[in-house]
Amino acid sequence: MRNLQGRLDLCSINTATLGHREPISLTIERIARAGFGGIAPWRREIESADIAQVARQIKTSGLAVTGYCRSTALPAATPAEFNANVDANRAALRDAATLNAQCFVMVTGGLAAQSRDLPGARSQVTEGIAMLLETARDCGVPLAIEPLHPMYAADRAVVNTLEQALAICRAVDAANTGYVGVAIDAYHCWWDPALAHAIGTAGREKRILAYHTCDWLRDTRDMLLDRGMMGDGVIDLPALRQSVETAGYDGLIEVEIFSAQNWWQRDPDHVLATCAERLQTLC
Amino acid sequence: MRNLQGRLDLCSINTATLGHREPISLTIERIARAGFGGIAPWRREIESADIAQVARQIKTSGLAVTGYCRSTALPAATPAEFNANVDANRAALRDAATLNAQCFVMVTGGLAAQSRDLPGARSQVTEGIAMLLETARDCGVPLAIEPLHPMYAADRAVVNTLEQALAICRAVDAANTGYVGVAIDAYHCWWDPALAHAIGTAGREKRILAYHTCDWLRDTRDMLLDRGMMGDGVIDLPALRQSVETAGYDGLIEVEIFSAQNWWQRDPDHVLATCAERLQTLC
Repeated sequence: MRNLQGRLDLCSINTATLGHREPISLTIERIARAGFGGIAPWRREIESADIAQVARQIKTSGLAVTGYCRSTALPAATPAEFNANVDANRAALRDAATLNAQCFVMVTGGLAAQSRDLPGARSQVTEGIAMLLETARDCGVPLAIEPLHPMYAADRAVVNTLEQALAICRAVDAANTGYVGVAIDAYHCWWDPALAHAIGTAGREKRILAYHTCDWLRDTRDMLLDRGMMGDGVIDLPALRQSVETAGYDGLIEVEIFSAQNWWQRDPDHVLATCAERLQTLC
Repeated sequence: MRNLQGRLDLCSINTATLGHREPISLTIERIARAGFGGIAPWRREIESADIAQVARQIKTSGLAVTGYCRSTALPAATPAEFNANVDANRAALRDAATLNAQCFVMVTGGLAAQSRDLPGARSQVTEGIAMLLETARDCGVPLAIEPLHPMYAADRAVVNTLEQALAICRAVDAANTGYVGVAIDAYHCWWDPALAHAIGTAGREKRILAYHTCDWLRDTRDMLLDRGMMGDGVIDLPALRQSVETAGYDGLIEVEIFSAQNWWQRDPDHVLATCAERLQTLC
């Protein structure tokens, strides 16, 4: 496993970690100044800004873009809505290319409104990703399917385990073109009894496109916005990173913390300094 | 699949559904009067009462005991604590026998205090269940391992998928004596992409000891106490029961709803009437 001490160049900050409280230009500045090697911005920040200028600033700052967050939900109640969702993702993929993003993060979407058809939603996800693959190749930006924690199966993502994400990769890209893979997020996957096996498989298939870290708080108070800073929770983060790197992952380690009542209330530079310290000592 | 219309004798009420607001004697009375065929009481109700009298009342009421809730958490920081946990479960198993319970529900426990050792906790669970098997056989009460939703992996149960529970069954009881199996709860398992396969396996191995129902609310507000009444959420309950019964399960359908802000605020007889109606029409 790589030693992260003194290697913040191997670490990236997902802008959600700072709570999206400031303009993207200032966020880029802070992250670069703190010494990180990468950034993962969100569409909400990019689509409301001058994307060419943002791309230039990121490049000038020497930051890699470890991912562009994130896909429009795919499952839909009607074919027209489904196609619109796919098209929205095509547009976002072009922006991801402009940003020179290493991947486009696919949070696949939950059940369509009023629907109880989980297998149907999962089929739509596979179909939608298959439809996006050509655009991904044209743009030179791989699709990173991010399995989300099962507690989000209803409303955010019907892809809930790494093995399931890998099965979708195989279904849409049997030839393994490099344009569809997975984003492994410690928060979403840490509990999975089949995780070690799935990480090994993902590595052998060369599908690991991103690795996200944060921590699971034992007394989680909110299902969405109460993620922990690395070291404050129960995940054995060094063991997890070791398994991901042993499987061949050599990309950046990206911090992504949603924390409305704690970290999003704090000074952004303090948050970044804490991330830096924890990454180097506890991850 | 069995038709539940007019067949409340095939349905059971877990007493948690009524919020544990009344003495167990009154709860038994209400559940029997509403026409249900079974009850699943909790240790908190039984251990504070005259258990022989409770057992007599349940028997006289004609109710089956579809499960006794629930095991003391197994994972522990010290061997002494671990052995105390196992012993507490032995005592509870004897009470389960007195109650003539069809199974003892094993909610296995989360990580030990201050621990990040998930594989270690899982090993302790397997070890503890192996140690309890003889007592279960002596008492004539099978152990029903209940995989809990992954959002409880830290604090409530490190067994989080049906396949994982089945693997423990095989590890401790390769001979398949009938004294260790699984409790399948719709709330905990509905999201699992491998569920249909695991239910089939569980059926072939004759390990399905209980089936619990309720619903997952799309806008769940609390990770523990916001379960939905059947029909109010997103789970395809008829499809799930069909798969469980196709796999050979012919026991009762047990309703278990934790709902602090909604159903626990309502009149118990109204809650039972609602359960009865939903069971017969939507499950």
